[in-house]
Amino acid sequence: MGGRGVPADLVIDLNADLGEGVGDDEAMLEVVSSANVACGFHAGTPAELIATCRAAADAGVRIGAQVSYPDRSGFGRRFMDIAPDDLTADVIYQIGALESIARSVGAEVSYVKPHGALYNSIVRHEGQADAVVAAIVGLGGSLPLMGLPGSVSLRIAGAAGLPVIMEAFADRGYRPDGTLVPRTEQGAVLTDSAEIARRVVGLIVDGTVTAVDGSVITVDAESVCLHGDTPGAVAHARAVRDALREAGISVSA
Amino acid sequence: MGGRGVPADLVIDLNADLGEGVGDDEAMLEVVSSANVACGFHAGTPAELIATCRAAADAGVRIGAQVSYPDRSGFGRRFMDIAPDDLTADVIYQIGALESIARSVGAEVSYVKPHGALYNSIVRHEGQADAVVAAIVGLGGSLPLMGLPGSVSLRIAGAAGLPVIMEAFADRGYRPDGTLVPRTEQGAVLTDSAEIARRVVGLIVDGTVTAVDGSVITVDAESVCLHGDTPGAVAHARAVRDALREAGISVSA
Amino acid sequence: MGGRGVPADLVIDLNADLGEGVGDDEAMLEVVSSANVACGFHAGTPAELIATCRAAADAGVRIGAQVSYPDRSGFGRRFMDIAPDDLTADVIYQIGALESIARSVGAEVSYVKPHGALYNSIVRHEGQADAVVAAIVGLGGSLPLMGLPGSVSLRIAGAAGLPVIMEAFADRGYRPDGTLVPRTEQGAVLTDSAEIARRVVGLIVDGTVTAVDGSVITVDAESVCLHGDTPGAVAHARAVRDALREAGISVSA
Amino acid sequence: MGGRGVPADLVIDLNADLGEGVGDDEAMLEVVSSANVACGFHAGTPAELIATCRAAADAGVRIGAQVSYPDRSGFGRRFMDIAPDDLTADVIYQIGALESIARSVGAEVSYVKPHGALYNSIVRHEGQADAVVAAIVGLGGSLPLMGLPGSVSLRIAGAAGLPVIMEAFADRGYRPDGTLVPRTEQGAVLTDSAEIARRVVGLIVDGTVTAVDGSVITVDAESVCLHGDTPGAVAHARAVRDALREAGISVSA
Repeated sequence: MGGRGVPADLVIDLNADLGEGVGDDEAMLEVVSSANVACGFHAGTPAELIATCRAAADAGVRIGAQVSYPDRSGFGRRFMDIAPDDLTADVIYQIGALESIARSVGAEVSYVKPHGALYNSIVRHEGQADAVVAAIVGLGGSLPLMGLPGSVSLRIAGAAGLPVIMEAFADRGYRPDGTLVPRTEQGAVLTDSAEIARRVVGLIVDGTVTAVDGSVITVDAESVCLHGDTPGAVAHARAVRDALREAGISVSA
Repeated sequence: MGGRGVPADLVIDLNADLGEGVGDDEAMLEVVSSANVACGFHAGTPAELIATCRAAADAGVRIGAQVSYPDRSGFGRRFMDIAPDDLTADVIYQIGALESIARSVGAEVSYVKPHGALYNSIVRHEGQADAVVAAIVGLGGSLPLMGLPGSVSLRIAGAAGLPVIMEAFADRGYRPDGTLVPRTEQGAVLTDSAEIARRVVGLIVDGTVTAVDGSVITVDAESVCLHGDTPGAVAHARAVRDALREAGISVSA
Repeated sequence: MGGRGVPADLVIDLNADLGEGVGDDEAMLEVVSSANVACGFHAGTPAELIATCRAAADAGVRIGAQVSYPDRSGFGRRFMDIAPDDLTADVIYQIGALESIARSVGAEVSYVKPHGALYNSIVRHEGQADAVVAAIVGLGGSLPLMGLPGSVSLRIAGAAGLPVIMEAFADRGYRPDGTLVPRTEQGAVLTDSAEIARRVVGLIVDGTVTAVDGSVITVDAESVCLHGDTPGAVAHARAVRDALREAGISVSA
Repeated sequence: MGGRGVPADLVIDLNADLGEGVGDDEAMLEVVSSANVACGFHAGTPAELIATCRAAADAGVRIGAQVSYPDRSGFGRRFMDIAPDDLTADVIYQIGALESIARSVGAEVSYVKPHGALYNSIVRHEGQADAVVAAIVGLGGSLPLMGLPGSVSLRIAGAAGLPVIMEAFADRGYRPDGTLVPRTEQGAVLTDSAEIARRVVGLIVDGTVTAVDGSVITVDAESVCLHGDTPGAVAHARAVRDALREAGISVSA
């Protein structure tokens, strides 16, 4: 859960995307406590999903369903104007598919984290945020939705009685209002391992991040996302892990 | 469960493929007790699967997962030489996807019936039959596998402790050895509604079918498959329903 | 061609979507002079595309490439925020695929008509309109782009030196400004065969259409689109054909 | 085109698979003279295909269409029992798509090399070999088919008047009868760069290869395939290039 002012028992969840056929899954599994696993709509074959879920389970890492737009050729990175009912169906389908994949290796899906353009869309898009929440509710409503603090999706999820997991990004620039610096702008992505590691520790110990303009802002986060597919991803992840260890912070889902 | 010599309580399951975007689903749902629902690998979008499951649930018709090769452009009708582990993963994925779809409309998946080329393949192909059975076992082993009496798949399923559902075909020609007449041969498909209806009644009351050579053979069947996408499909289905009613046979899963 | 005030030689192109697995292609081919053929991104397998191109060629109907977003499960009906370069690549790929398919049956692709959401998007979306035009230019620039009069796409195409084909819709409601009534509003779709036929004749003879508010507006059109997949499509198409014959108007690409 | 006994002017074509999202395309383009480019059925998005064709064109490397079964999730590595007419349509579609992609960057497709399971299938499968040849014939018959010497596909291609390109494999074991050692057996793949380089030189200078049993066999080859996605692929390729340079053999399509 993390949060500020709990020095006696500091703990944080680290999550990363795995099983997308990019990056070094094995190395990341030594660092993270949560694996966002693709569900086949933007990446991943069923056989690859099984391998990823098995590796996560073996590493004691919990599994999240990384649901996506049905956009294989765009890796789920392009907004699609899908009608809410259709999107709900897409999300239900994907969660179910991954749940069975996980079940077959003795694991389970513990949360839902939308991927790529869908993740970004439901920060603001009410109709699609509703649709994603409706999918989780339609499956019983017990799976938490992971998302950006302050997003429409988490607000709707909360109102619907869903548990939510607020997440921060280890390597993304923040604007003073707490939103992320768009990838098209300067300062969108941090590339220095030491700076990334310091940020994560600051997030957990103080609940703050230094924004691109130098101001210090409050960021509530129960999980911190590490990117697994960027250059230096493994180095960043290990720097984070080492810094957390030094700061006496445990990593746990 | 049908069978011979039980005149006091004759009952049969009728199954048909639904939700493939061909045929008159509404009409078929008035006749059958089991709906084989595509899982997206050979046909069906998640939104279509939800609509089909909802219609089945509303009609009191049980739902089966019609798992398939990943062959959209070939409608799952072409043999694919998939490695057993990959096929197991494909089947697990599909069952899970449809289970969640069904769950979201208050229904459930009650059996597994492979589709098209996969259905035919596992009549004889040990590796793929093993793979399909392994998928169901991997998900807990409670779902029955529907298939052809005498097939390798049902034998392996039985040996693995899975429940099985033996099925007969209302409109397919039988050879004297109990196998189906291949579609490329004369007599492969019956097209006369009255004859089809008589055959179904005979199957249930006597447990026999007249083969293409005129011989009468024994066919054990707990379910009878009606094709929903052939010319005259609805007429055949209604003729079967009326003939069953007249013979005092109930239709029930 | 068509146009106003050319009573001595009235001729119009009629186009319809074919080969999408919906509607009665055979009946439509007796009426239209241009077939918009799917390219596999929203519908159509290669084998189906060959069958459609062959049928069009046999009927003396010219073939247009109906390029689409890569959105099979949504039938290309959902806006996708694809980067221009990626969209250009998608369009080039589709045109080339259909050109070879057509070539293999002794026919050719004679124009490009974007499908569904892409068609609508490039009425206004500069980046995507640019991308579609860039694709055709990149292939030599000889294929005309079919689209809505006044659209951004046709303007950009014209500026790039591409030939364009302005089209009107036989069964869609027009607003006083010449745009189409959105499908979510009253009057979006005409359903009376006689009215549809009268409209088409009026379009060709007078170059006008009666808008939803009763006003008569000018619509320049060299081709008129008949929908092939709506209820009554074939009846509408035949009513149009008969009305044209009576008015002495030939149908020709 | 290489071959024995032409010491004054030794030249060989080297080909490799590119644009599949695996391997180091840039490094391979410095070595090979022919790039087998995926056509989207087993790998590659249109945007990726454009990038690959552009890189090949910039490097002066000719482009071949690497047509495949429609099997994305299996990377085209699994036999599919596709009916000949459907397979012909699939191949036509893919060649056309890649031809347009190539044309848009000022390049062209210069040959056809089936990929993966399709490549292997048509070594023996008459129906599918016929289907592939029919596709190339249907597009005009000017594109050469690249394949294994002695294969059914090359025999049928030759009989149909198609040009053929016989190829050898730099890193695959040969059996005494000139066929490849199956990947499931010992000796299927060579992993020593020096041995691979020696083999390629021997192939060109002497037209022979040492088979797994130590016997020296004759192999006619106009092109030698370098695998681009194996461990050590780039090292092998560079060793081959250096050995060829030393032996005074030019690399050219």
